Amino acid sequence: MVQRILIDCDPGIDDAVALMVAGATPAVSVQAVTATFGNVGLDGTSRNALAVCELVGLDVPVYAGADRPLVRDVIGGRTFHGDTGLGGVDLPPPARAVASGHAVTAIRAVVNRFPGEITLVVTGAMTNVALALRLDPGIAAGIQRIVFMGGSTEAGNVTPAAEFNAFADPHAMRVVLESGIPLTMFGLNVTHQVLATPDRIARIRGLGNPVADAAATMLGFYAESYRATYGWPGAALHDPCTIAHLLDPTLFTLRPMHVSVDTNEGQNFGRTTCDARRLTGRSANVDVAVTADADRFFDLLTTALAQYDRSRL
Amino acid sequence: MVQRILIDCDPGIDDAVALMVAGATPAVSVQAVTATFGNVGLDGTSRNALAVCELVGLDVPVYAGADRPLVRDVIGGRTFHGDTGLGGVDLPPPARAVASGHAVTAIRAVVNRFPGEITLVVTGAMTNVALALRLDPGIAAGIQRIVFMGGSTEAGNVTPAAEFNAFADPHAMRVVLESGIPLTMFGLNVTHQVLATPDRIARIRGLGNPVADAAATMLGFYAESYRATYGWPGAALHDPCTIAHLLDPTLFTLRPMHVSVDTNEGQNFGRTTCDARRLTGRSANVDVAVTADADRFFDLLTTALAQYDRSRL
Amino acid sequence: MVQRILIDCDPGIDDAVALMVAGATPAVSVQAVTATFGNVGLDGTSRNALAVCELVGLDVPVYAGADRPLVRDVIGGRTFHGDTGLGGVDLPPPARAVASGHAVTAIRAVVNRFPGEITLVVTGAMTNVALALRLDPGIAAGIQRIVFMGGSTEAGNVTPAAEFNAFADPHAMRVVLESGIPLTMFGLNVTHQVLATPDRIARIRGLGNPVADAAATMLGFYAESYRATYGWPGAALHDPCTIAHLLDPTLFTLRPMHVSVDTNEGQNFGRTTCDARRLTGRSANVDVAVTADADRFFDLLTTALAQYDRSRL
Amino acid sequence: MVQRILIDCDPGIDDAVALMVAGATPAVSVQAVTATFGNVGLDGTSRNALAVCELVGLDVPVYAGADRPLVRDVIGGRTFHGDTGLGGVDLPPPARAVASGHAVTAIRAVVNRFPGEITLVVTGAMTNVALALRLDPGIAAGIQRIVFMGGSTEAGNVTPAAEFNAFADPHAMRVVLESGIPLTMFGLNVTHQVLATPDRIARIRGLGNPVADAAATMLGFYAESYRATYGWPGAALHDPCTIAHLLDPTLFTLRPMHVSVDTNEGQNFGRTTCDARRLTGRSANVDVAVTADADRFFDLLTTALAQYDRSRL
Repeated sequence: MVQRILIDCDPGIDDAVALMVAGATPAVSVQAVTATFGNVGLDGTSRNALAVCELVGLDVPVYAGADRPLVRDVIGGRTFHGDTGLGGVDLPPPARAVASGHAVTAIRAVVNRFPGEITLVVTGAMTNVALALRLDPGIAAGIQRIVFMGGSTEAGNVTPAAEFNAFADPHAMRVVLESGIPLTMFGLNVTHQVLATPDRIARIRGLGNPVADAAATMLGFYAESYRATYGWPGAALHDPCTIAHLLDPTLFTLRPMHVSVDTNEGQNFGRTTCDARRLTGRSANVDVAVTADADRFFDLLTTALAQYDRSRL
Repeated sequence: MVQRILIDCDPGIDDAVALMVAGATPAVSVQAVTATFGNVGLDGTSRNALAVCELVGLDVPVYAGADRPLVRDVIGGRTFHGDTGLGGVDLPPPARAVASGHAVTAIRAVVNRFPGEITLVVTGAMTNVALALRLDPGIAAGIQRIVFMGGSTEAGNVTPAAEFNAFADPHAMRVVLESGIPLTMFGLNVTHQVLATPDRIARIRGLGNPVADAAATMLGFYAESYRATYGWPGAALHDPCTIAHLLDPTLFTLRPMHVSVDTNEGQNFGRTTCDARRLTGRSANVDVAVTADADRFFDLLTTALAQYDRSRL
Repeated sequence: MVQRILIDCDPGIDDAVALMVAGATPAVSVQAVTATFGNVGLDGTSRNALAVCELVGLDVPVYAGADRPLVRDVIGGRTFHGDTGLGGVDLPPPARAVASGHAVTAIRAVVNRFPGEITLVVTGAMTNVALALRLDPGIAAGIQRIVFMGGSTEAGNVTPAAEFNAFADPHAMRVVLESGIPLTMFGLNVTHQVLATPDRIARIRGLGNPVADAAATMLGFYAESYRATYGWPGAALHDPCTIAHLLDPTLFTLRPMHVSVDTNEGQNFGRTTCDARRLTGRSANVDVAVTADADRFFDLLTTALAQYDRSRL
Repeated sequence: MVQRILIDCDPGIDDAVALMVAGATPAVSVQAVTATFGNVGLDGTSRNALAVCELVGLDVPVYAGADRPLVRDVIGGRTFHGDTGLGGVDLPPPARAVASGHAVTAIRAVVNRFPGEITLVVTGAMTNVALALRLDPGIAAGIQRIVFMGGSTEAGNVTPAAEFNAFADPHAMRVVLESGIPLTMFGLNVTHQVLATPDRIARIRGLGNPVADAAATMLGFYAESYRATYGWPGAALHDPCTIAHLLDPTLFTLRPMHVSVDTNEGQNFGRTTCDARRLTGRSANVDVAVTADADRFFDLLTTALAQYDRSRL
């Protein structure tokens, strides 16, 4: 069965790869793409989202949303994604413009058009979704579930405590975590298990189509950032985990847990607290991805990107 | 010169009196009334706002807004205002309905219609304004100023630290305090200086018109709450301070200060910190009312309510 | 009846004046003086305590205690007290040395020598007392009460939220506030009511004895600091309030309240929260001084310093 | 070379096993044992420490220390250790009494007797050590290092965020972490790698000496607690990791990191934040154990307990 999804993102290399995978398969039907500030500013993420959609032939409207977090100040983007956010890949300027209307309006419209059927895939800060939930609390009941990249059961990557998306807008994440909507979380604990290594990137480049080429170039840049900064053998491919999970639920194991996020501004600001051992007695509100089958994940990724042969684009 | 204002409120007895005063004079031109959750739930505050507008002949649209805070959970209303929020006064059911569209949309529309001219008068939690500022950051430049009741330079009234409106949505108040918009604050430190005592209420009742009658009955209820709970000689007439200040800037003295609100959830959650002694070195962002001429305040109030003779209504 | 007291202090001009008043009267019997870091470093406060005791003929041992707070980092002293802590007054080097043994040991010994009889007068950070209570929890039952200068029912003086002694060691203050020992608090809200103005200082100088001379010179320095920094007409004479209260309980009115101190490190770190309106439902743990009779306070002060005629010293 | 150590503990089953291992070998020379509140109350932990020392023939003084944390309130002990703290093992009442004098005094004395030579092994809350450091800051320079069980690079076991010893007294842990003393940390991340499984316990019981018997019985109780509560195949043998590391540094791999502990009382109160990826730019203050060779750890443990044949005791 086709899953109707809306992708809320801040491309970003790994967001871009997530869009490429989503665009490659009829198993998900992308209703809209919404952009938020994050890896670069809102203008950049909107333009990148649009450019990637055009590259992969994903003919859906792209909306711009929040240019700042719900409450806190804006944090700087990640140099890991390069100046433009796409790791030095120079996509053609998009022919289309960003759709008129705010991302929040688009989210509400899509949910209301298909009540109970939409999965929100969120790969950036959760500001757009939180604003939509506060402006129109009724849509919570109409969202089938939210699959997001963010947080961690363990350590963070911006601070020792906090993951980037959670830190970028902890208050928005809290709104989502307390919304009662079914949630599936891909945190650093699992995204660090799927590393885009030179070998895996080489396989993608070997596909020889323009989308795969762009993906391989971005991932090369990304992997080099991880290598130079942390000495890791590859780049953690965070955001594509969400789409991959929708396409093949067997790639990741999930465990239901109570998850909260710290909105107090001390050393743990933006940290997700995951009650894996049920110490709080609070009911689980999130299915948390805990293990990944990395080889099969990259198989799926490569197979998806292989769909973009020249005849199709 | 007529001041164009939008009143964002959560009636509530003192909000109702503020509306009565605003409706009595051509010196302010009310463009719209928006309601938020607060003293009672959103349905109640919307209906009360509408009913008071009809009572005083204020023919402006009333919009419903947020039914919950930006981030935190909803706190219970104040019994000080009675079950309906209007202290046992039974206003006729409004003939009109709440206007369609969200309060946030109304705020944006009013600001954009009169850029640079609108004063927002906020007498409840700041959720609607914060949502408007986050959805459309550009409107900040178009708001002339925000005059609000909330916070305190000293102690609180819900907790020892926090005033009700600030505590009801500290995160929203922070968004407003950090917005760069010119702000004027009427906190408990000054609203506790204008007590509706039995004598002052008797003067209002003596006016003998239906609006003054309703005001006097509400205030009697309110004063009795303050007497029974705190042993005070009268009710603190919080919200009308905002309108009274617009009508006669000489009633209150103001001091510029840096004001912040604590969004960390400890014993000072929702407390406003007012840097009266310039200890932080941070620039003032708020004109804080510090003293009131209570007698002249009640003169203004009584004179305003005297406008509602039967021939006018 | 003579009250046996131990004075724990960080002289500091106003601590010095407190010692002068205590030394002038047989109504209090000072058992020991203990010093803590604070207005200047521990070496300075110990030496100052010793020098003032010698100046006034107070023949009691002076012990050095904590050189840093219980948990937090040391904050800088207050320039209000000058480089030496005594506002430029050059007291003769003390003939005696600081007594051997830690202030904490001295506090325990004095309390255990007179169980149930000792009033601790604390005019600095509460580190010494907190350490004593943690090392020997049993002494809590033996302390008659603790009369302290610190905190505020309103704003602070180091940060907009926190008073100096509370901010210097909030964790220690919390230990004391939660100790169950009867407590009397003189916070900024009341010490700001007793200003050493030029007229009042002139009266002291007119006494013509060496102690009064030293006091007048220190207070002149102190008052100038307040004038130059805040434009105030005199210096807030914080610490002597404690001793004055012991000598004449009618000088200040007290109200029982629940008082807590914020140990979370945000904008309200070190702020005392005083539940004057009984909003928390928690039992009062502190008698909080709320009003002062400033004229009679300075009469008492002047009368006390008048005891130091040359024949006595 | 013999390492001189002082063991500060709160027995507790795993503390007891740590003492058994320490008592079995001349490679460490235990100078004193100090007890703190923790797994049971101070009376219980002192008595247990004494009883275990007598059982294993460890003829050193046992001192009682803090019966409560530095600042926070006392948390309840862990049912995992049974009512007495030793998992139902009924050791003979100790012949000796607890030594006179406070644990804090003993710590200072031992450090000052062997300046620069003492390793403090801390397996409970850090209250005693923090008090010693605050009472006598000079001893920090004389402590060779502190090897402690506490904290976690990942999740906690009392709350999802905090490990028991850290949560029992976060403020004390902070004092130690900021002391500048060389620190080695055994947190849950590594102690969860050394599980006392039925097989491993059976090996110990098979040794057939009274100490091993007691150890095996305690560990059986402990393992059953873990099985029943978490479904784990064995009990995490937290505290003995410290002694085992001293006896064989190759059992665990360590990584230098900056470690802090959250003393703000929100959802992360008592959580250790470990900067494994050097995101803060702060220098490492702790060598954090990250991997364990569990089989060799249990070999060492079993070999140590084998020393207690009947002829020796």
